Amino acid sequence: AEVKKIAVIPGDGIGPEVVGEALKVLKKTEELFGYQFETEQGLFGGIAIDEKGTPLPQETLELCQKADAVLLGAVGGPKWDSNPKELRPETGLLGIRKALGLFSNIRPATVFDCLKEASTLKPEVLEGTDLIVVRELTGGIYFGEKFRREGANGQEAVDTCVYNVQEVERIVRQAFEIAGTRRKKLASVDKANVLETSRLWREVVNRIAPEYPEVEVEHVLVDNCAMQLLRRPSSFDVIVTENMFGDILSDEAAMLTGSIGMLSSASLGEGSFGLYEPVHGSAPDIAGQGIANPIATILSVALMFRLTFGYHEAAQAIEDAVKHVLDAGHRTGDIAVDKSKAVGTAAMGDLIVAAM
Amino acid sequence: AEVKKIAVIPGDGIGPEVVGEALKVLKKTEELFGYQFETEQGLFGGIAIDEKGTPLPQETLELCQKADAVLLGAVGGPKWDSNPKELRPETGLLGIRKALGLFSNIRPATVFDCLKEASTLKPEVLEGTDLIVVRELTGGIYFGEKFRREGANGQEAVDTCVYNVQEVERIVRQAFEIAGTRRKKLASVDKANVLETSRLWREVVNRIAPEYPEVEVEHVLVDNCAMQLLRRPSSFDVIVTENMFGDILSDEAAMLTGSIGMLSSASLGEGSFGLYEPVHGSAPDIAGQGIANPIATILSVALMFRLTFGYHEAAQAIEDAVKHVLDAGHRTGDIAVDKSKAVGTAAMGDLIVAAM
Ligand SMILES: CC(C)[C@H](C(=O)O)[C@@H](O)C(=O)O
Ligand SMILES: CC(C)[C@H](C(=O)O)[C@@H](O)C(=O)O
Repeated sequence: AEVKKIAVIPGDGIGPEVVGEALKVLKKTEELFGYQFETEQGLFGGIAIDEKGTPLPQETLELCQKADAVLLGAVGGPKWDSNPKELRPETGLLGIRKALGLFSNIRPATVFDCLKEASTLKPEVLEGTDLIVVRELTGGIYFGEKFRREGANGQEAVDTCVYNVQEVERIVRQAFEIAGTRRKKLASVDKANVLETSRLWREVVNRIAPEYPEVEVEHVLVDNCAMQLLRRPSSFDVIVTENMFGDILSDEAAMLTGSIGMLSSASLGEGSFGLYEPVHGSAPDIAGQGIANPIATILSVALMFRLTFGYHEAAQAIEDAVKHVLDAGHRTGDIAVDKSKAVGTAAMGDLIVAAM
Repeated sequence: AEVKKIAVIPGDGIGPEVVGEALKVLKKTEELFGYQFETEQGLFGGIAIDEKGTPLPQETLELCQKADAVLLGAVGGPKWDSNPKELRPETGLLGIRKALGLFSNIRPATVFDCLKEASTLKPEVLEGTDLIVVRELTGGIYFGEKFRREGANGQEAVDTCVYNVQEVERIVRQAFEIAGTRRKKLASVDKANVLETSRLWREVVNRIAPEYPEVEVEHVLVDNCAMQLLRRPSSFDVIVTENMFGDILSDEAAMLTGSIGMLSSASLGEGSFGLYEPVHGSAPDIAGQGIANPIATILSVALMFRLTFGYHEAAQAIEDAVKHVLDAGHRTGDIAVDKSKAVGTAAMGDLIVAAM
């Protein structure tokens, strides 16, 4: 098989530990399915600030640009939280998204049956919940002009939210495509009763909708969506929204599944290139103890197989192995009911590899 | 007693019905406590568009400006949803907030014991939840410059989010004051890792905090707050945040209580003036049927008594009467388990008046 290049960015906190287990799984798929992967590691985030004086070193960016896909652990931690903006891990994250043109963030919010109890929602409300948030990732108020100025009432700060037709079109089209492969329902979330960017967004959705007659579209105001996610999560299939709203709603959606430690995400650009990472953060409080849950990162490899490489059989094998291990009752500390029986990061990785 | 002037704005949908019951309660407090209220009604929202060609007629604004407080039902409905911006009810809402200088929106998210079951959250998670969202209401991306322009990639839309130091100070101070009268915990919500306005916001909070040494402050990122509201709602006391985040989070917080049909809100300016309204909307689907729940509007009168008039005894009498009626098992259709036993809008109002 063709050699696929994967840039591996362990990052900070528990990042290196969980990525280590994902690499075991990757290796196992080479044995089982005859794939060939070439992995190379790069520095990114806090560790890159410490070692290279910048969260996104040029060589890491080039490594990613030459790769077919990127596997990212997690970045950030209290150590860098009070740094000036250019020396903060988040700045690297925003930078890599922009530099790699990753305009679309795909966040499945899946309920794992064995973790349903971990949700703060009633099980009967969660029943059937299986949604994907498609978040625009390189536009909006995140990347618009920001500055301070002197105003009539003292200093003022300004952020600018900008969207052009083309930026909205490409993300909306992608969301329609995804909805078409699923339950064929698309909720477009905006604040069209207040924002001009939302009115543009809604116009584009309405213009594109007739190209996807099989997909049913509803427009939901962002405040209402924050409520409906709580009231009727299972009624959503695909949610598409702009950057800032997507940041908030994808986290709300992830949390309500009760499975936040298990969720993976993809950030995609044009073509098949993508960056894959767990939804959870760098968890500095438990870093280095060998107790972090590697499942979200392992499932990010499965997502990479599906979305970038089209290796569906192998993706299924990984997902089935995870399910098998969980069904057999194995748990890391974060998801264990009886913490004394919890297995560590490496043991969980080994169990999943063995189950493949 | 001094005569207090209340501008009454029934609005659209179920607005007139629920306001009607609140006026019965107001009258009852005159009898019981010897207060004197002078009420005058004004047109606002959809009905004002129909009758006056504008959602906020000048005479309604003047009526409010001459009043000590405003009682609002609800505005909006599908009839006006596709109108141009100047002829939409929301435009009136934004206009009245700005014109009356209502910079602070106070939204208590209270759990009614008898409605705990109505929440989609597990009862043990909700236990002890009693929080207030203090939302900045006349600044930020709601009121910044908005426009379209031709860009390199076709048409683009722009919204501007602006905050000055003074705008942040006054809302933050108010939130500290409120927290001081409660459990003395303030969560300031922002997106300081991305937005310049959030960095300004956080600076102001940190500068003011030492003036309120008894209040414990935490900074919470907005995406994290959307999650924590689900995970540990009872750990919040007062949440203060900017306009757009407040719109989203206050609705999420309201929904998780399960009591959304029962929640009241206050929009305050300088001094004691305030506008009071139920959190729920105009519910056009059930308008005119005499089945709407008037409790949120009745409790808005109690909130007016507390925050604008300092009539604490009467406020307590209203709140106790509501509790009494609910404890006795009376329910409107929206909150009834057995819908066949539900009482109508007027019957609920009468029961509460009788219980006072
Ligand atoms: C760290 C932060 C800048 C980032 C964002 O807001 O996009 C994070 O919350 C995320 O969702 O990936
Ligand atoms: C109708 C709309 C403009 C309004 C807002 O976003 O402020 C509403 O959602 C609210 O919260 O009062």
